[in-house]
Amino acid sequence: MSWVYIIDIIGTLVFAISGVLTAIRHKFDLVGSVIIGLVTAVGGGSLRDMLIGETPVGWMTDINYLYTVLLAVILTYLFESQITKRTKSMFLFDTLGLGMFTILGVQKTLNVGLSIPIALLMGAVSAAFGGVIRDVLTNEVPLIFRKEVYATACILGGLVFIALELFSTYTNLNMIIAMLTIMVLRYQSVKRGWSLHI
Amino acid sequence: MSWVYIIDIIGTLVFAISGVLTAIRHKFDLVGSVIIGLVTAVGGGSLRDMLIGETPVGWMTDINYLYTVLLAVILTYLFESQITKRTKSMFLFDTLGLGMFTILGVQKTLNVGLSIPIALLMGAVSAAFGGVIRDVLTNEVPLIFRKEVYATACILGGLVFIALELFSTYTNLNMIIAMLTIMVLRYQSVKRGWSLHI
Amino acid sequence: MSWVYIIDIIGTLVFAISGVLTAIRHKFDLVGSVIIGLVTAVGGGSLRDMLIGETPVGWMTDINYLYTVLLAVILTYLFESQITKRTKSMFLFDTLGLGMFTILGVQKTLNVGLSIPIALLMGAVSAAFGGVIRDVLTNEVPLIFRKEVYATACILGGLVFIALELFSTYTNLNMIIAMLTIMVLRYQSVKRGWSLHI
Repeated sequence: MSWVYIIDIIGTLVFAISGVLTAIRHKFDLVGSVIIGLVTAVGGGSLRDMLIGETPVGWMTDINYLYTVLLAVILTYLFESQITKRTKSMFLFDTLGLGMFTILGVQKTLNVGLSIPIALLMGAVSAAFGGVIRDVLTNEVPLIFRKEVYATACILGGLVFIALELFSTYTNLNMIIAMLTIMVLRYQSVKRGWSLHI
Repeated sequence: MSWVYIIDIIGTLVFAISGVLTAIRHKFDLVGSVIIGLVTAVGGGSLRDMLIGETPVGWMTDINYLYTVLLAVILTYLFESQITKRTKSMFLFDTLGLGMFTILGVQKTLNVGLSIPIALLMGAVSAAFGGVIRDVLTNEVPLIFRKEVYATACILGGLVFIALELFSTYTNLNMIIAMLTIMVLRYQSVKRGWSLHI
Repeated sequence: MSWVYIIDIIGTLVFAISGVLTAIRHKFDLVGSVIIGLVTAVGGGSLRDMLIGETPVGWMTDINYLYTVLLAVILTYLFESQITKRTKSMFLFDTLGLGMFTILGVQKTLNVGLSIPIALLMGAVSAAFGGVIRDVLTNEVPLIFRKEVYATACILGGLVFIALELFSTYTNLNMIIAMLTIMVLRYQSVKRGWSLHI
């Protein structure tokens, strides 16, 4: 099992937990929690795969992703108060997922033969659109349109990854640097309240 | 024409009628009624087909589904008051559609070679996500997240179907038993006010 | 470069500008503007392509569409007040885009081998569903369900195009006549306040 796979699963778990927390806050029932958890974790990647024509969508051919989402539902119901207290750890793992989802989305789109700008866009869609669909389903205006340097961090990190791949064949290292870029950008943007309002 | 096809068409008609009633309640115009009727009836199956890569989506290759939706629009405009009075008959046909859409969704997903848990999920998506998309388009929080044992009935019925298929080759009979399971679960859940809040 | 391509790009630009204006009105940030601009311009065609199985979706294989959207974002930020004053020119170009998107959507759907009624529907989806997705993402009830003869103009124009194609091989001329039909219907419907409430 590669480190990429492990971080991908961790990202899925944390994204799903954040979805389930949203569902609980909206007083959804168990089914609602599963759906919102699933959509938050795999919705972005599903949209990317449907758009680029890589179907069945990725998470369907490896059952571990669905089980990870179900685990997230159980963990969140059992340890809700502890999880909501650990905002810092949750945020760390969330940025980890953000970075990994972006890079994997960029890679998958390039592998289909699409261009670099489309790959950057699909990297951001992979990482950010699960949250957009979650917000639409809970009848809220998607958060990323308003307040946060979120998709921007993904696009810049994706750009770093593609640039590094041009000069170096150490893909693992390139991924790590690009992910760290995304994590740092995201962390700094929240800490300093960066925004892109013009 | 098989009994499966007939019930599938009846389910399409009733789902579409319920969509058109929603559109009328929201004071949408004729186009809005057609779109909401269509989305309610074929939206779940379309999402399933796009996710599993079975495109063009099913209803596009058999024009009867589109005609059934248009018939539903005409019937609802002509007989709105009579239809809204017949809540019991409508509910019966609605559960019939729910059962059939679920089983057909499970079958189609298994035929693509995907796993049983994914097939159960796609069965529920086929039956329940038309209503979710309808609710999103009419700017309401999807009902199934809050109050009803709806998707759960689909998943349990799908499980019954798959279990029966392992032991018996009488697929028609297995389908009927699974559909009855979904119909009874759905009927009882509404009658007794079951919910899955934890 | 054909006249069809030029009008398609103009339509993309104008649809994207209208999306960006919506985003600015909702006080979205730059990323929100890009996403809403992109979704308004290419969302309808993307949904059509995913439904009929023509993936990667069209705009991904020709980078000019993405660049046109980015150009729309820049133009709208720079010249917002001038653009919002030119409502008549904007409306003219918007109906031009509406007509072209419809006809191209009808053609693409027929080319996949689907039936005429489905092609008419997909023509309307190509032209009108970008706006629907924009409205969903900005948490508004889609406008086309309520007030405007919009999708209807697309379906009638599509019908004119298909009818002309049966009798004449001058496809360019047929496209122009069909587009003019859509533009005139749309213009008259807005001018006279036509609606389809029954």
